[in-house]
Amino acid sequence: MVGLAPPFREKETHDQKMNVAFQGEHGAYSEAGLFEHFGDGAVALPCESFDAVFAAVSSGRVERGFIPIENSLAGSIHRNYDLLLQNELVVVGEHNLRVSHCLIGTPGARLEGIRTVTSHPQALAQCEGYLKRLGVKIEPAYDTAGSVKLVREGGNPSVAAIASRRAAELYGMQVLAEGIEDNPANYTRFLAIACHPVEPGPDAKTSIVFSLENRPGALYRAMSVFALRDIDLTKIESRPLVGKLWEYFFYIDLAGSVEETRVKNALANLSEFAAFLRVLGSYPRYRGG
Amino acid sequence: MVGLAPPFREKETHDQKMNVAFQGEHGAYSEAGLFEHFGDGAVALPCESFDAVFAAVSSGRVERGFIPIENSLAGSIHRNYDLLLQNELVVVGEHNLRVSHCLIGTPGARLEGIRTVTSHPQALAQCEGYLKRLGVKIEPAYDTAGSVKLVREGGNPSVAAIASRRAAELYGMQVLAEGIEDNPANYTRFLAIACHPVEPGPDAKTSIVFSLENRPGALYRAMSVFALRDIDLTKIESRPLVGKLWEYFFYIDLAGSVEETRVKNALANLSEFAAFLRVLGSYPRYRGG
Repeated sequence: MVGLAPPFREKETHDQKMNVAFQGEHGAYSEAGLFEHFGDGAVALPCESFDAVFAAVSSGRVERGFIPIENSLAGSIHRNYDLLLQNELVVVGEHNLRVSHCLIGTPGARLEGIRTVTSHPQALAQCEGYLKRLGVKIEPAYDTAGSVKLVREGGNPSVAAIASRRAAELYGMQVLAEGIEDNPANYTRFLAIACHPVEPGPDAKTSIVFSLENRPGALYRAMSVFALRDIDLTKIESRPLVGKLWEYFFYIDLAGSVEETRVKNALANLSEFAAFLRVLGSYPRYRGG
Repeated sequence: MVGLAPPFREKETHDQKMNVAFQGEHGAYSEAGLFEHFGDGAVALPCESFDAVFAAVSSGRVERGFIPIENSLAGSIHRNYDLLLQNELVVVGEHNLRVSHCLIGTPGARLEGIRTVTSHPQALAQCEGYLKRLGVKIEPAYDTAGSVKLVREGGNPSVAAIASRRAAELYGMQVLAEGIEDNPANYTRFLAIACHPVEPGPDAKTSIVFSLENRPGALYRAMSVFALRDIDLTKIESRPLVGKLWEYFFYIDLAGSVEETRVKNALANLSEFAAFLRVLGSYPRYRGG
């Protein structure tokens, strides 16, 4: 089964007021990322789950979804790889966001008085060294911005949350410390998803997913269709193929667009022996700061 | 930097009474797996975290650790890939465990009376269809066997846990339904870890981890050192290389032992251009039912 991307229908422009779904509460890092990507004119729709983001795009309620796919410290967000496969949406853009965590308390709270810190488990893990030095109790929460809301509702000056500066401002809370992450090389890569493909322009990337017959050298052969055409692979990720024990779907990002002849030829070559192949989309490579 | 495995020191035999650390409470799937792997004579040491399992082995408190590395439905347990790299332990065995979930209530509880179900989030997700049909509220817990303990302590006949039949028996609780997972192809692959390598025997697998210079075709070149020697790769996994943006450690499992000439040659070849290479261990391939 092979599904190649349909022809491009529109050119992506970011000056239109785009409705964009994201997972989390207002003030989430995903929301900060989508405003960077789509511009301040975008209208952000908070969703409870990643599934709900995909559903909002599929149903036409919003034009775009904006999902984290990979963090430079924690690794891939595998749920979203699975959802890309389960849904018929296409990838139309990527964005890298620098993640900088703040310790956020109630108005008037003091850093010395903090005894408990709550946030998403990944944010807590990224500030582990700081929190150990602070000697506080940690409590996992549903998400970063949501933990700021919880602390505001609790009104306890000895409880603080970890989230973005934007979340603190949005909920009228106080930033007690900034840049508290143990490693400053903390970036999250997001994908923009839509119902229809866009024109990726001259400096494009393409995301594909495929599975292979379970035989020796199969993945090497799959990678050779790109290597033999000098196509650079920027990412490879494997996910279990449910129902087939210890077989995998492979997700690959490559430099180039499906409009380029050598990419077209490589994918045609791969489809000759892949058990399954789907192009998730071609999109402009992120070239921000 | 290249670290090849030291020579083998001992032959693994499972008739000795082995002390083995695992993550979770007594009755956890990891504990069931280690008794299958090491025999009923093994002495199981419960640990709070995967970090604690590695520490128990490193310190010599136990001879072996037993860690889940991959589930056929959920994918890899990335924390353990990271810990394999951060610790100096070696992989000395692998084991596949069939995971079959039970709904477990207090003694005398009835299935019709269950309103709330608690367990590890992954167990809850694997029984999602069953729980939806049951129409119950779900509550995440620290681990599967631990959730049985919690339900016992609570003593509420409308609350049930999801765990193994063994956990129900161990805590004197009642199995209300068995095999409630949505997909029966539910297996977890475990690795046995130790301070020193063992003799892997004639049908071996080898796990390695390496990183590459960030240049086009680098991963293809790495895979070619195995393909050109007809060495079968059974698994590939990537994890972020912290401190280098969008670069990765690659974890590969291959068929063969580091004692075989062609594997030795392939690894020597890889070390010519890998930025980092470490052999995590050669061990007997799992050949159970």
